[in-house]
Amino acid sequence: MLTVDGLQYSNWSREIFEQMREGGVDAVHATLAYHENTRETLSRLGEWNRRFEAHGDLIMPVRQAADIARARQAGKVGIFLGAQNCSPIEDDIDMVAVMRDLGLLIMQLTYNNQSLLACGCYEAEDSGITRFGRQVIREMNRVGMVIDMSHSAERSTLEAVELSERPVIISHANPSSFHPARRNKSDKVLAAIAESGGLLGFSAYPFHLKNGPDCTLEDFCDMIARTADLMGIEHIGIGTDLCQAQPTSVLEWMRNGRWSKEMDYGEGSKANADWPRPLSWFRDNRDFPNLAAGLRRRGFDEASIRRIMGQNWVELLERTTVPAAALEEAAA
Amino acid sequence: MLTVDGLQYSNWSREIFEQMREGGVDAVHATLAYHENTRETLSRLGEWNRRFEAHGDLIMPVRQAADIARARQAGKVGIFLGAQNCSPIEDDIDMVAVMRDLGLLIMQLTYNNQSLLACGCYEAEDSGITRFGRQVIREMNRVGMVIDMSHSAERSTLEAVELSERPVIISHANPSSFHPARRNKSDKVLAAIAESGGLLGFSAYPFHLKNGPDCTLEDFCDMIARTADLMGIEHIGIGTDLCQAQPTSVLEWMRNGRWSKEMDYGEGSKANADWPRPLSWFRDNRDFPNLAAGLRRRGFDEASIRRIMGQNWVELLERTTVPAAALEEAAA
Repeated sequence: MLTVDGLQYSNWSREIFEQMREGGVDAVHATLAYHENTRETLSRLGEWNRRFEAHGDLIMPVRQAADIARARQAGKVGIFLGAQNCSPIEDDIDMVAVMRDLGLLIMQLTYNNQSLLACGCYEAEDSGITRFGRQVIREMNRVGMVIDMSHSAERSTLEAVELSERPVIISHANPSSFHPARRNKSDKVLAAIAESGGLLGFSAYPFHLKNGPDCTLEDFCDMIARTADLMGIEHIGIGTDLCQAQPTSVLEWMRNGRWSKEMDYGEGSKANADWPRPLSWFRDNRDFPNLAAGLRRRGFDEASIRRIMGQNWVELLERTTVPAAALEEAAA
Repeated sequence: MLTVDGLQYSNWSREIFEQMREGGVDAVHATLAYHENTRETLSRLGEWNRRFEAHGDLIMPVRQAADIARARQAGKVGIFLGAQNCSPIEDDIDMVAVMRDLGLLIMQLTYNNQSLLACGCYEAEDSGITRFGRQVIREMNRVGMVIDMSHSAERSTLEAVELSERPVIISHANPSSFHPARRNKSDKVLAAIAESGGLLGFSAYPFHLKNGPDCTLEDFCDMIARTADLMGIEHIGIGTDLCQAQPTSVLEWMRNGRWSKEMDYGEGSKANADWPRPLSWFRDNRDFPNLAAGLRRRGFDEASIRRIMGQNWVELLERTTVPAAALEEAAA
């Protein structure tokens, strides 16, 4: 079973990489930046270079979709990098291609708040894609950087799908119909994502789940089955949003960046400010087989389970990360 | 006649400073940054430090309103610095106080495009002040940095006035009723600015004027008279938007920053891409006496002319640039 996780932001260590292998994880979309600007993003890349050097027996970089098969063959975990915000490009259209050259395969247009490109899901109102945002979408299409709208607001997401000539994804969220969190997505958005050729990665972050940390595996797999009916089996995958071993200070950075003088509790609250308690059936990277087993019990056939557990993510990267010029050449 | 110009962005030189003295200019709001980020803004400040050092016989920095009287007494031009965009603070609420400490007295929340704080007047739609924007307004109020909405869209401007506890200004623009440019302001906005205790600086930039470069001094002064009726004589001043001796490349930087791969012509067009031809009655800093003479011919009394030509700007800075804590102490 090829296993790909469409979103993690852990406090990376050899122990975690070993757990990934134990859980049969072949590739992970690792978050490189939340609020980091261009220069700071380069330092995050530098940290990954060090990890690839120190743990080259366990992990390797994924620069193109085919690298995931190579990682699997070598018995390693492939790491593909994405940003949860557009802060790495700051106000500079030219940074899209520069970041793509450095291996940034995926970028969210917003992280909760209004960005220079689009509106985040925590703003009161959403006026859609900005002038700069239109240019960035075109440039991401050109260089083969995947547009991720996980933390964006509804109108901006629908406009991004309309403006983009290539698939748009939600790497980590769930349907609002399952749990009405601000971060989850309406059926309208999910249908548009599927229509674009994109993908939804199901989140196992308790704030995105019915009954929070007490959400059952059965309910989770039932949500997947209903979403498969809505989006089609080719357009769903996993995006656990797993944040292993992170201190509360990192959660505070994610929620507050540098923009707030008062503590913003995001999906939590003052009384519930810390990381949520993990799910009993998905504690860490060793529990991916539980997911596959749950899908099997829910009645999915093996081909569908393979799609959900990893194949759809590989095909999505094949469709979206090749530069437009190379696609045209191949078609000619 | 105390003369204050509420906006200039010239290719600063000794010649221009001499022309200012010749024109009787006592103080100028000089634009420090259009798209410069925090680090780049520090370099712009460094350039001003050099100018103050090299031309200390002609110019001096204005760090508080009272410095304008000091400049006048010393026969020098006082320079007070402002940013036409929020790029100097990037995504960092703490940079408001840091920039204020460095002498940035005025900051626009947007420059034409959507910013992290608010919406610019060139976006298709305006969803108002963002979450970060609310915090920045509060912080600007606290440290005594003037909120300038010259390049902002209507709803964002009205919301800024509503959210701000201190006066909000339009340093350089004209009423839309005089000329319906995108950069000009509705009567509703102008009334709100006056109500806040703020100020409108009348722009002499031909794109903001009826008949463009052929706008007559009579029409200009008539516009001032009608705006005085709307806003009150205490809430109007001059903000010429004079950009002396700037090459076209600077106009392109103002319009395009780093956000556009295609040339954006702003208020111009492909066929009219360059700086506009200057007004016959306001070619450069030597022509301020023409303005006062025009107001006199239009029937303004001397007290009103003094207000428009400079006194209102001084009083505005007195009201807005003292830190809130110092105001409270003074009141206690």
